[in-house]
Amino acid sequence: SFEFPKATALGNFRPGLDVTIHGFLGKRRDKGSALTFCHVQLGTQNVQVVSSWQEEGSLQHNAHQELKAIPAYSPVCVAGTLQETGKSDNVNAGKTWDLKLRSVQCLNPFPKDIIVSKDAVWPPKSRHLQLRFDPLLQDRLRLRALVAARLSKALRSQKFTQIETPVLFKSTPEGAREFLVPTRRQGYAYALPQSPQQYKQVLMAAGIPRYFQFAKCFRDEDHRADRQPEFTQLDLEMAFASGQHVMKVVERLMNSVFEMLHEDFVPTDFNGTIHPVRKGTSDEPKHRMDVAGNTTDKDTPDAVPGFQKAKPPYSRWSYDYAMSVTGSDKPDLRIQPPHASNIYRVEHLLSKDFVSMITRLEDPIVEACKFRLEGSPHDNGAFIRDFFDNLRNTPQKLGADSTPGVFIFDSSKPLQGLSALGHEGAEGLASIDEQYWQQCEDGDIIMIHARKNEPFRGGSTELGKIRKMIYDTAVEKGCLPKDHSFKFLWVHDFPLFSPTEDDPGQGGAAGFSSTHHPFTAPLTPEDLDLLKTDPLRARADHYDLVLNGVELGGGSRRIHVAEVQEYIMRDILKMTDQGVGQFAHLIEALRAGCPPHAGFAFGFDRLMAVICDVPSVKDVIAFPKSNKGEDLLVGSPTKTTPEQQKTYHLFQKS
Amino acid sequence: SFEFPKATALGNFRPGLDVTIHGFLGKRRDKGSALTFCHVQLGTQNVQVVSSWQEEGSLQHNAHQELKAIPAYSPVCVAGTLQETGKSDNVNAGKTWDLKLRSVQCLNPFPKDIIVSKDAVWPPKSRHLQLRFDPLLQDRLRLRALVAARLSKALRSQKFTQIETPVLFKSTPEGAREFLVPTRRQGYAYALPQSPQQYKQVLMAAGIPRYFQFAKCFRDEDHRADRQPEFTQLDLEMAFASGQHVMKVVERLMNSVFEMLHEDFVPTDFNGTIHPVRKGTSDEPKHRMDVAGNTTDKDTPDAVPGFQKAKPPYSRWSYDYAMSVTGSDKPDLRIQPPHASNIYRVEHLLSKDFVSMITRLEDPIVEACKFRLEGSPHDNGAFIRDFFDNLRNTPQKLGADSTPGVFIFDSSKPLQGLSALGHEGAEGLASIDEQYWQQCEDGDIIMIHARKNEPFRGGSTELGKIRKMIYDTAVEKGCLPKDHSFKFLWVHDFPLFSPTEDDPGQGGAAGFSSTHHPFTAPLTPEDLDLLKTDPLRARADHYDLVLNGVELGGGSRRIHVAEVQEYIMRDILKMTDQGVGQFAHLIEALRAGCPPHAGFAFGFDRLMAVICDVPSVKDVIAFPKSNKGEDLLVGSPTKTTPEQQKTYHLFQKS
Repeated sequence: SFEFPKATALGNFRPGLDVTIHGFLGKRRDKGSALTFCHVQLGTQNVQVVSSWQEEGSLQHNAHQELKAIPAYSPVCVAGTLQETGKSDNVNAGKTWDLKLRSVQCLNPFPKDIIVSKDAVWPPKSRHLQLRFDPLLQDRLRLRALVAARLSKALRSQKFTQIETPVLFKSTPEGAREFLVPTRRQGYAYALPQSPQQYKQVLMAAGIPRYFQFAKCFRDEDHRADRQPEFTQLDLEMAFASGQHVMKVVERLMNSVFEMLHEDFVPTDFNGTIHPVRKGTSDEPKHRMDVAGNTTDKDTPDAVPGFQKAKPPYSRWSYDYAMSVTGSDKPDLRIQPPHASNIYRVEHLLSKDFVSMITRLEDPIVEACKFRLEGSPHDNGAFIRDFFDNLRNTPQKLGADSTPGVFIFDSSKPLQGLSALGHEGAEGLASIDEQYWQQCEDGDIIMIHARKNEPFRGGSTELGKIRKMIYDTAVEKGCLPKDHSFKFLWVHDFPLFSPTEDDPGQGGAAGFSSTHHPFTAPLTPEDLDLLKTDPLRARADHYDLVLNGVELGGGSRRIHVAEVQEYIMRDILKMTDQGVGQFAHLIEALRAGCPPHAGFAFGFDRLMAVICDVPSVKDVIAFPKSNKGEDLLVGSPTKTTPEQQKTYHLFQKS
Repeated sequence: SFEFPKATALGNFRPGLDVTIHGFLGKRRDKGSALTFCHVQLGTQNVQVVSSWQEEGSLQHNAHQELKAIPAYSPVCVAGTLQETGKSDNVNAGKTWDLKLRSVQCLNPFPKDIIVSKDAVWPPKSRHLQLRFDPLLQDRLRLRALVAARLSKALRSQKFTQIETPVLFKSTPEGAREFLVPTRRQGYAYALPQSPQQYKQVLMAAGIPRYFQFAKCFRDEDHRADRQPEFTQLDLEMAFASGQHVMKVVERLMNSVFEMLHEDFVPTDFNGTIHPVRKGTSDEPKHRMDVAGNTTDKDTPDAVPGFQKAKPPYSRWSYDYAMSVTGSDKPDLRIQPPHASNIYRVEHLLSKDFVSMITRLEDPIVEACKFRLEGSPHDNGAFIRDFFDNLRNTPQKLGADSTPGVFIFDSSKPLQGLSALGHEGAEGLASIDEQYWQQCEDGDIIMIHARKNEPFRGGSTELGKIRKMIYDTAVEKGCLPKDHSFKFLWVHDFPLFSPTEDDPGQGGAAGFSSTHHPFTAPLTPEDLDLLKTDPLRARADHYDLVLNGVELGGGSRRIHVAEVQEYIMRDILKMTDQGVGQFAHLIEALRAGCPPHAGFAFGFDRLMAVICDVPSVKDVIAFPKSNKGEDLLVGSPTKTTPEQQKTYHLFQKS
């Protein structure tokens, strides 16, 4: 198999032409002993090979025998004559071709011990087979490349310059735990960057007007939901810009991506996943799935409403507003009336008796929200009981502050099923008349939950978590319709600092750390003043972009004045001289006449996961790591050798 | 400085318009007390601000005083009225603008203790200032982004898909020493990839037809000439392709880049560096250099012959041919008649006596080459004496096998100055009549050198090194004209294996290692057969792309059959089971019906350095590392802390 003829370019195909094609052999469909069909596929190109013979020992007969001897899924080189095409199933599809077989060469036989079956799911160790036999995964990787190209183009047209920054960086207390790269000089190490943040700020000080980069970032985190130890950021920064300006640029970027999706892709339902199928190709994934030995359950996957263009400007909610009406700093705007209410404060409607039943907190805030599923009161009662039963069996633990009170509104029952609230409470709740709380109807699920009477902290309240989970579960179980729209939202005005918890933060002695990173600028001069008196109340000029409840990325205006940066590190975060000294390069760069600047970073893997409607970033990464940070295909990380241990001064496991 | 007005888009500029601009203030040129000029620059945008006043206390007067109070180089926000433009010096340039000052706001004063002077060279620690005040460096970064975009576009149009592969990989004996990334699990580590080679081959096995990626690669090398511990590869791979096919694609890529350079850039001489200046911009670097406080020596830099388009197909030389006629596996094709000859074998022309004078080797190969500089015999003699004197003072050591014999052809002397060769030798040498060896003339420098009589190994012969160094020195000293052309060359048919020297190689017991990497396919079935009998004679299907004596990158057809891959690792390289086992993922992927495939990787930094005519890759990287692998701006690598040592199981320096 050293030599084989070149393939004929698809663009030159025309009926009657003698061509050579390369690709992987599909399953053969024999029609008796003298006629057989099979597809040969390469990427999105798909040609049906037709082989027949009339005379034993003829060229056709020999080729036919050769074809039959080649295992399915082998790479082949096939020569033959193009025939008038059959019609494609899909009116949007391009031309399809038949090839009358003249000769075939097997370039590497597919082994017998690998069983390719319908619905085969390959273990992570066999990622090469998953990539090979899952056309949706291949599609997602192709789309990922297209989206990246589209974003790069949009950024270039807005005068952004792509600049690479080092991966071998150094350890700084920016916030997360960093991987180290020890050197041969004992006691010295590089660190892998958690983001290109510091280098990009130096670029701003260096007079680069606008920067972007697809950057690999690294965090040695404990394994939280769907995070990878290495991930890809689309990182950007603008000199002489405010946060407002950056948000507009980001909206334009998203618009550009959704314009492409709208024009070129049809969201199509494959067993519940809304997969973007490219228009006008002869290669619907269904077809390729057949070739790969897999099929969908349905003959023709359903097209669902097309990708709408995202219309800027997006809604903007302050962190406090988002937390109060959705209990989350990344609200899913698809959770809305008539199916679900916002969260409303209700403690003024409720009796102390009832409140004391759901919480032991003194003077709590009590909130309620409401769901209207597509079922009878009885069905909905069963749904919500199931939901809470399952919740107890998942790692998602609810806090101990409050037990959720759950009611089904039912006009056939005393006090409409709300009797536990007492007469006044039931009446009050039933008559709430707010914009995002529709009048109660039979079957409505009402949730009541208490929380501490204190300012919002962190990413969500208990009730916010429950509300999102109920919505997702109801959609998954068909109790609510799947909403195919893409709902963007800006969340802004985050607290500048948060009490230090799990993350190492900046290691200062203040008891709190930067909510995002220590370079975030205070929102207003008033917030800068608050640092002296009540730093936890100071707001940051930080903004998160949220899409359907997923944080796509975040950004901020940065501190561009060296004195302010040092003041926050030294006097507010109470970092040591040594800690502040680790940022000397940045402070020095700010000092050299650094202009005001602001930026943003997309979690590119996450953006792709949302666009592709897949539950995990692993589904949009060619070679993802497991939840334990292992690449099970190659088997990394590996045991170090004594020689490596010596070279890089690593302890040997005893 | 929290708030400042937005800038007016350059596209909206028209005379008489009130606008706001952002940028860095240049040096003020006062014309008396009531009139001053200064530029405000941002990136490649440059506006001249004109400030004058007539009445004390007027708005103009106040603005004028404010302007004068702002230190040069500070970031500013300026408002005023656009005026009829003056003419640009450069007919190719776009519009230039004057702005009649109305108000100015300083956004961060440039400190007094940083002295910006003409020709300032900043230490690596102040890379931010070098980036800020060296417009040629900024230009190179912009051009780097443009070239990357152009290459990506060309690859996409040829149906390549950009796919990211992991940076946290694992240690494998691919050839070079790898950096390790220890995990919190004692004794386990990731390794940083020396290239995406193995993952891209898995992608080929996974049915991806064509892949590319701008990939960060890492090698923990001892510090050789102009190498960085991290560098950027443009990496590509094609399924069902031969090396020939890949070479054509690479030529098309280069063509595309040089087309862009030809159309949009003018190579311009700045103090000896031929810098690509973008056409049709109002921002010639000369001008921006003025603003930055620096100027070139000349008022108007010289334009030199334009970028020619590279015309495929490029010449193709076998490794043996390249080594025999240039003594290098990366020949610089600008070294050519009439200025320099090829290398020719001359031992048949020389007496044993003479040969024994220049070498102690038995039965050596003796070679000669010739230079014709632009000087008198006397000047040339001085040049070559200087050259060898300096050589002794550089790290470039010559081997001990032979002393170069150096002669100046001079018809006024006995035997034309070649008397040391004896009558026959002098005659023979003077009468060589070959295509790349012109008849001797007065002043020609003739070099004679001996080497072992054995097949070529490695990157160059002694004479090849000297020939290249003499050429470069002569051009630098003006003894030869600078050749502004770009001369591409393919070098192919490298030996598959080389004796193991410094690099760790594959750690096999064979005494030799893969010349490039252990995945390179033997050139022909005959070379595969040679593995059994004389593996060091087997040729590889490997090809290097060389431009003006610089290796831009290399590629090969890969082994795509698992049995062959295992055979070479186990039986030829004599790797241990454990060593072979580290490649299990690759062998498993090849086994799963992997198609034939071939690829290429550009050293992207090096490509940019050649295009920009700079001596080091450091000049095309925003944040390069020093020759010791240090980032002197941020001060990496750093000392590890006791906590880090504990977390990642590192030895503490005692």
